[in-house]
Amino acid sequence: MAIASLRFLLPLLLFAAVFFSVDSEYIAYNTSQGIVPGKLNVHIVAHTHDDVGWLKTIDQYYVGSNNSIQGACVQNVLDSMVTALLQDKNRKFIYVEQAFFQRWWRQQSDAIKKIVKELVSSGQLEFINGGMCMHDEAAVHFIDMIDQTTLGHRFIKEEFGQTPRIGWQIDPFGHAAVQAYLLSAEVGFDALYFSRIDYQDRLQRMDLKSLEVVWRGSKSLGSSADVFTGIFPKNYEPPPGDFYFEVNDESPVIQDDPLLFDYNVEERVNDFVEAAVAQADITRTNHIMFTMGTDFKYQYANSWFRQLDKFIHYVNKDGRVNALYSTPSLYTDAKYAAKELWPLKTDDFFPYADNPNAYWTGYFSSRPALKGYVRMMSGYYLAARQLEFFRGRNNSGHTTDSLADALAIAQHHDAVSGTEKQHVANDYAKRLAIGYAEAEKLVSSSLACLTESIQNSGCSNPKVKLEQCPLLNVSYCPPSEADLSGGKSLVVLVYNSLGWKREDVVRIPVSSEYVVVRDSEGREVESQILPLLNASAAIRNQYVKAYLGISPKVNSLHWLVFPVSVPPLGFNTYVVSSSKQTGSHAVMSTLYSPQESKKSNIEVGPGNIKLLFNTDEGRLSQYFNSRSLVKQPVEQSFSYYSGDDGSGSDPQASGAYIFRPNGTTSIKPEVQAPLQILQGPILDEVHQQINPWIYQITRVYKGKEHVEFEFTVGPIPFDDGIGKEVVTKLTSTLMTNKTFYTDSSGRDFLKRIRDYRSDWQLQVNQPVAGNYYPINLGIYLEDKSTEFSVLVDRSTGGSSIKDGQVELMLHRRLLHDDGRGVAEALNETVCVNDKCSGLTVGGKFYVSIDPLGEGAKWRRTTGQEIYSPLLLAFSEQEGGNSGSLHVPKFTAMQPSYSLPYNVALLTLQALEDGTTLLRLAHLYEVDEDKELSTMASVDLKKMFPDKKINKITEMNLSANQEKEAMLKKRLKWKVEGSTGEKQALRGRQVDQSELVVELGPMEIRTFLIEFDSDSFLKFGDR
Amino acid sequence: MAIASLRFLLPLLLFAAVFFSVDSEYIAYNTSQGIVPGKLNVHIVAHTHDDVGWLKTIDQYYVGSNNSIQGACVQNVLDSMVTALLQDKNRKFIYVEQAFFQRWWRQQSDAIKKIVKELVSSGQLEFINGGMCMHDEAAVHFIDMIDQTTLGHRFIKEEFGQTPRIGWQIDPFGHAAVQAYLLSAEVGFDALYFSRIDYQDRLQRMDLKSLEVVWRGSKSLGSSADVFTGIFPKNYEPPPGDFYFEVNDESPVIQDDPLLFDYNVEERVNDFVEAAVAQADITRTNHIMFTMGTDFKYQYANSWFRQLDKFIHYVNKDGRVNALYSTPSLYTDAKYAAKELWPLKTDDFFPYADNPNAYWTGYFSSRPALKGYVRMMSGYYLAARQLEFFRGRNNSGHTTDSLADALAIAQHHDAVSGTEKQHVANDYAKRLAIGYAEAEKLVSSSLACLTESIQNSGCSNPKVKLEQCPLLNVSYCPPSEADLSGGKSLVVLVYNSLGWKREDVVRIPVSSEYVVVRDSEGREVESQILPLLNASAAIRNQYVKAYLGISPKVNSLHWLVFPVSVPPLGFNTYVVSSSKQTGSHAVMSTLYSPQESKKSNIEVGPGNIKLLFNTDEGRLSQYFNSRSLVKQPVEQSFSYYSGDDGSGSDPQASGAYIFRPNGTTSIKPEVQAPLQILQGPILDEVHQQINPWIYQITRVYKGKEHVEFEFTVGPIPFDDGIGKEVVTKLTSTLMTNKTFYTDSSGRDFLKRIRDYRSDWQLQVNQPVAGNYYPINLGIYLEDKSTEFSVLVDRSTGGSSIKDGQVELMLHRRLLHDDGRGVAEALNETVCVNDKCSGLTVGGKFYVSIDPLGEGAKWRRTTGQEIYSPLLLAFSEQEGGNSGSLHVPKFTAMQPSYSLPYNVALLTLQALEDGTTLLRLAHLYEVDEDKELSTMASVDLKKMFPDKKINKITEMNLSANQEKEAMLKKRLKWKVEGSTGEKQALRGRQVDQSELVVELGPMEIRTFLIEFDSDSFLKFGDR
Repeated sequence: MAIASLRFLLPLLLFAAVFFSVDSEYIAYNTSQGIVPGKLNVHIVAHTHDDVGWLKTIDQYYVGSNNSIQGACVQNVLDSMVTALLQDKNRKFIYVEQAFFQRWWRQQSDAIKKIVKELVSSGQLEFINGGMCMHDEAAVHFIDMIDQTTLGHRFIKEEFGQTPRIGWQIDPFGHAAVQAYLLSAEVGFDALYFSRIDYQDRLQRMDLKSLEVVWRGSKSLGSSADVFTGIFPKNYEPPPGDFYFEVNDESPVIQDDPLLFDYNVEERVNDFVEAAVAQADITRTNHIMFTMGTDFKYQYANSWFRQLDKFIHYVNKDGRVNALYSTPSLYTDAKYAAKELWPLKTDDFFPYADNPNAYWTGYFSSRPALKGYVRMMSGYYLAARQLEFFRGRNNSGHTTDSLADALAIAQHHDAVSGTEKQHVANDYAKRLAIGYAEAEKLVSSSLACLTESIQNSGCSNPKVKLEQCPLLNVSYCPPSEADLSGGKSLVVLVYNSLGWKREDVVRIPVSSEYVVVRDSEGREVESQILPLLNASAAIRNQYVKAYLGISPKVNSLHWLVFPVSVPPLGFNTYVVSSSKQTGSHAVMSTLYSPQESKKSNIEVGPGNIKLLFNTDEGRLSQYFNSRSLVKQPVEQSFSYYSGDDGSGSDPQASGAYIFRPNGTTSIKPEVQAPLQILQGPILDEVHQQINPWIYQITRVYKGKEHVEFEFTVGPIPFDDGIGKEVVTKLTSTLMTNKTFYTDSSGRDFLKRIRDYRSDWQLQVNQPVAGNYYPINLGIYLEDKSTEFSVLVDRSTGGSSIKDGQVELMLHRRLLHDDGRGVAEALNETVCVNDKCSGLTVGGKFYVSIDPLGEGAKWRRTTGQEIYSPLLLAFSEQEGGNSGSLHVPKFTAMQPSYSLPYNVALLTLQALEDGTTLLRLAHLYEVDEDKELSTMASVDLKKMFPDKKINKITEMNLSANQEKEAMLKKRLKWKVEGSTGEKQALRGRQVDQSELVVELGPMEIRTFLIEFDSDSFLKFGDR
Repeated sequence: MAIASLRFLLPLLLFAAVFFSVDSEYIAYNTSQGIVPGKLNVHIVAHTHDDVGWLKTIDQYYVGSNNSIQGACVQNVLDSMVTALLQDKNRKFIYVEQAFFQRWWRQQSDAIKKIVKELVSSGQLEFINGGMCMHDEAAVHFIDMIDQTTLGHRFIKEEFGQTPRIGWQIDPFGHAAVQAYLLSAEVGFDALYFSRIDYQDRLQRMDLKSLEVVWRGSKSLGSSADVFTGIFPKNYEPPPGDFYFEVNDESPVIQDDPLLFDYNVEERVNDFVEAAVAQADITRTNHIMFTMGTDFKYQYANSWFRQLDKFIHYVNKDGRVNALYSTPSLYTDAKYAAKELWPLKTDDFFPYADNPNAYWTGYFSSRPALKGYVRMMSGYYLAARQLEFFRGRNNSGHTTDSLADALAIAQHHDAVSGTEKQHVANDYAKRLAIGYAEAEKLVSSSLACLTESIQNSGCSNPKVKLEQCPLLNVSYCPPSEADLSGGKSLVVLVYNSLGWKREDVVRIPVSSEYVVVRDSEGREVESQILPLLNASAAIRNQYVKAYLGISPKVNSLHWLVFPVSVPPLGFNTYVVSSSKQTGSHAVMSTLYSPQESKKSNIEVGPGNIKLLFNTDEGRLSQYFNSRSLVKQPVEQSFSYYSGDDGSGSDPQASGAYIFRPNGTTSIKPEVQAPLQILQGPILDEVHQQINPWIYQITRVYKGKEHVEFEFTVGPIPFDDGIGKEVVTKLTSTLMTNKTFYTDSSGRDFLKRIRDYRSDWQLQVNQPVAGNYYPINLGIYLEDKSTEFSVLVDRSTGGSSIKDGQVELMLHRRLLHDDGRGVAEALNETVCVNDKCSGLTVGGKFYVSIDPLGEGAKWRRTTGQEIYSPLLLAFSEQEGGNSGSLHVPKFTAMQPSYSLPYNVALLTLQALEDGTTLLRLAHLYEVDEDKELSTMASVDLKKMFPDKKINKITEMNLSANQEKEAMLKKRLKWKVEGSTGEKQALRGRQVDQSELVVELGPMEIRTFLIEFDSDSFLKFGDR
């Protein structure tokens, strides 16, 4: 009975609340106010900021468990939001983090889904930003940014037909140029909003009313990728004056019932007007935004909306200012309608400091193992999607979805950033591991299918069994370690996800030094054996035990190294077998220990690169490229900064977020552990035990014109009570005049000048921390003749603190919390049988020294190779001579075709709807390289020789709208003092029959392709 | 668009949630489970406990302000409850405190009201208890209990047509017999539930499965007023095992989404079953109740219901126990259906201790000034309603509504109990003051109308101006203090709200000692002048300044005292004029100071009562009644208990709730301030400055057979760092054998035996605090020949710690919080110009010593007079001889009629709907008095001689249902070992033409009367 009669009651309620007052003591709040020209318009934006993991895991935040750590339940927010919006159609709410929204959406009934769709289509609920998370901007690679945004945006498009219009990076700790031009402009956002910029910058912008600007993040794309950018006056919370209305919050609620005590309407209206006027004083136009919400608020949305209703009602009755329910979109439209000229902002907003001694540059390097894992998975995901595409997505079986989701979540600004609690970091890693395990099966089976040349639909269960080795980084690979003495041999499948043919060197552990390697045509391939030294074996034992719970077999292991040649978007196979049966075998490296010699200098390097080491001091002294003839004295050293413990007059400690060094200590190589040098035909290695907890291998390959450094740092000791932040410094003689270059999210390189900011007169408080920048791809120096480049294998922080010097932070272990909420010291450990020790981090960086003008080519090409390492898969076969595979070598492209060297394949992905997502990126900036900073073109017919393209549609970057429509509707903002500007070079529209994609410098183009479904099935048949 | 389509969506949602699952990941929880015979049924009762003021004021709790003190907002609870109930029709919620509900209801739109009415009529929302507040049971007078319950119950009846079935006193600190038989059985409740009983009692009851009993609270009414009573196993919160689900609570939520981490359905089901089995182990029948809620919870109701839905769903899937949404009513019905025999409980549940040193007997006396104010207002409200009835309620103008509301709220168990924060105590007092101010105007105008004999409808603005003096207790009364020397005189109107003719003494301050008093017929009345001594003048100056912000005129004030004779339910008038014009005047009291005499004993008392004072020691030594010839040695003394400061091994301090004395100190009369004795024809007064902060006047009247003690205690000093609890002890030679009698809420007298409980073997830990009982009416002793009775003017704590001795606590000032939540020391102050000093408390108690068998008559009659003091109103007139009033003397009854002495008029109230509420009470218990414990009868025709009664309907006590229907439907519970029992004596049904109301001992009968409306208008015309 009660139910039946509700049919007419609920709508009535909704109208009643707005339009008339039926009872003398019931107050119908007038919340219908729109913009009033000529008045100061206060745009009330009701929002919640829901970290996709931080103090709790994403799932704990979602369901509201683990509340003893933090009271937060996103399910409450979303449930109560629906009800609150239904109660008054003028109320508006924005929702940002799709990882949460999707969890909730899955659980809803069809009825609720229908209601929510109505709320979205009416504009009451608006999706803002719209990625799976609000990604970090310092420690995140631009490909991951694109992927996680695409994942969120396409969901919103599919379920709601909506395309988010606004970037909303309100919390990340500094802001990347790539965020502005790529993840905003190219996505189609009309504006980007955030709050965290340097406190000195903010003060000046408040003075100059330049918190709102047009940000031009790309010098290549120029004004074509401008975005209107609003920096909040203080933070993303309500304005000063007590406007917090979460359940149990302490701000005074509006008491407007004259029959109750403490009526306070006038006071509260005054508070509101005062806050509005103060904000208007630092803002251009008569529109300001009140961000009414903060972390995990609106758990009972009505507690906020009840107050916001009253504020709008009474403030507008008062009349001094005009208050309205708004969204960032409506605010942006109002700003746009004002036809104002806006200040121009270029470059980026790094580093971020919120206090003189609080530079948020520590997190660039926090949790280097997690950062490395994320980067490894990112490259793997790219490759796995290709293989998912080859196999065909609609086949039953494993997918990349779980890895996609885990990776998306890991881009959150408290995930890969390293600023989460330890248990949450574990959760991200667990998700990645689960996602990887799923993708690994897909990869193995897809590769197996390709080797069997079976049609997709028939290849759900290939006979060939391929195994992969995710723990190769700790020298552990059971399939390659197999005993081959019984006549079996090992097939090594090497997959190349790049669009170019690739020559590289493969390195695997084998259990015998007597092996021989043959290529897919049975030809013997030169190979080299290196011993697995004690340091590596110890790491292997500890970490295999820690990760897998097993003690690995103690074989007499060796490294087998051999060169491979792999076609683009394809694979090649090699067979390793016991050499006892064949005679010829891999070359054993020679071990050279300097004590034995009297020479104080020794040269290593079997190819063009020759390194000189001073054996007395055990250090690198010179780099020489015999081809380019670049010769450069270089030193490399390790040192650590003592993390400030906050015991001084400024209690700021160094921590997960903040880098506050308190002195630096050089780490001298240990005299008792001299260099060990291994030499052979393929590469030379220099092993150094720098100190008891730093080990380094320097590698010079015959076929590579760079040096590879592999470091192993940890456990960092703290028995002296001091947290340590370990760096390596590479010192050259380049005359760099304070200038260096670091990448923006792995994409553009930005010029950095030590102790200088282009936007304001910098007051230098932290001469080291204040000059740190995030590094995702690399850092380089140049002088009049030479470029000195360093590339990294994961995100980290780095700088050039002295002219000619490059510094990278490798690991951090700190003993104090830095007071930004995480409430834990950054003290990572790894435990075996409940015995925990400080985490050891292993990683690589790469150095090349080139003549001026030639560095870019190395950086761009090698950068792609580092991001997308060769993917290895192993299979045992009987007999040792030729591979047992039906198709031992494969390329998806036309056999002779390769992508141009200035183009990278970012995405090749079979979508659920049967279409294919293709993303191509020009790799060079304008003027970066004489030859390669030019228009490039890709011939899709040659790229997909076996498939017929029925239709190709160019999309915006996140693939949720057609590019053309996006360009048409995107707002064009005017810049102060703007004069004629050279138009950016961009590729022309793709002709549906020519099917050639042109790309200008730094251009990324995104397409949805519909292949002829018949042609699809032929795939793999070639 | 979004709005229109909601019409069909919401109901859909409601059904969808229950009956089918539309999406594979949407879980439709089955919450429809009812009782399952043969299984353990767990009745889940979703509830919130909303204190009507405690740490915050009622309005702060309602709107959610002042959250820094306590996060609590009842508006959130009620708003969110509606939504949560709409989401699933199986969900149920109970709401208790009508003071909150009414605030909310007023503010709702008609649409919401309609929805809520549906929820109530379907049983999803049930009103439980249903008074304005959950009244205290120790410090509350039964008339106030009835009034506040009636106010809530009639509202519920009018708005929702519902009658609450269940008493729900879950939080009060001990439980009164009156609560059981009167406020439960007579109200029509089928059961009463609560949680706080003595910890020793609870342990035994858990052992014996006797937490659920039939409570027989009245020996007069016997089984006819039994009530089924359930005591919760621990408290009124969820069972042990982490079942708290408020937003941000830390109990583990059920995570049942297999796609998220930390799935925990099994663990949580086990927790639930474990809690259920543990509770079943101490409970009879296979029904147990889980009280799912606590103070101010369900601010976002969905956060609880979401979990409760899941528990019901999964626990029932598990099947070991049966969980269902229930209410206390459904639970009670299930208990009743089990046809069990229940243990019998008699007497009451005082005192309450929750720990060996934690007797909640301090609050019996906490905030004696507030307790006094509440009692004063209670009597005033009774009288004011009579005058509102006489004037006619429908006339425009002032009403008693505001006072009714303030008084109702003040009965809350953290209001008059004295256990609220100071600012909240101030709020209650402010509400009473506002309510009084409104009622005062009504009273003045109604009395004026009566004196003008104008018909009701015409009497909204009478000419006669009557003033009242609410500050007479601090000797302040501007109208009576008027200068009469210019020939004006003062009319004193004396209203008697009792149903009997009353002879009493009036006492007013006058500004001249030369005055004469005449009655309404112009006859001179004997009068007496007493000086206003320094102590009183100082109090007057300080408190008038504190309360009114003015310094009262410093006249040479005197007290004028004269006897008055006032008809029942009526008034008489007296004229005071200057005696200089007439010659004869009031008799000046003689001042007698013992130093001047050599006698060591002095007798005072102009009438039958003679007191002997020992002047050497300045103390009372003997009481003698020359009529009854009772002669009894009596001593009176003051002492204080040092409040334990919690610094010992048990950190329990004495505080607002808890009385934990740490030693006692006698207060010796000061030698330097001897007795002052004032004597005259009407009364004698003995003034004693006991010490610098205790002053006492002992009064013996010619016309009264008792002694009146007026004490002034304060500011209690604490410069010794010790909190003090001040008591007076009256010591007789009665041989009382540990036995004494205290009233239950001002109604029945219960036998108390020191260091003994009838229900269990008492372990005595606190020999003083553990023997304290609440006193609202009085306490008495008796031995084989004598009764020694003490009556109080407000609620307080008292005991008989030694045989023959009565002890009353008068004031408490403590320096430590006692750890029960209020988080303030009970340290009351009064401030003038920001200078604060300890609060001074003034009050009275009355002592009579009578032959055995004669005490009841004095206690019952005098008790009524104390509760309903004469109401004085003043008017100035020209000339001094005869009153200027048209009607100087009035009674509403037939001139010769009086109510029998064993009947009191509890309520005579004109209701808003035009009917009249009449409540009559028999004043004696069975066997209490030889003559008066018999059937009494009231002739309504004589009581309302001017009005025609069209219809009289007997109602239940709270007047929300007809008595007959109530009796018919009320459940009759069976008692273990019950044998034949004498039927209670109750009056017969009232014959509509006879109109005679019979009342058996302790019977209270409630009627709704419809008077002929024509007859009504004649009123006052006689």
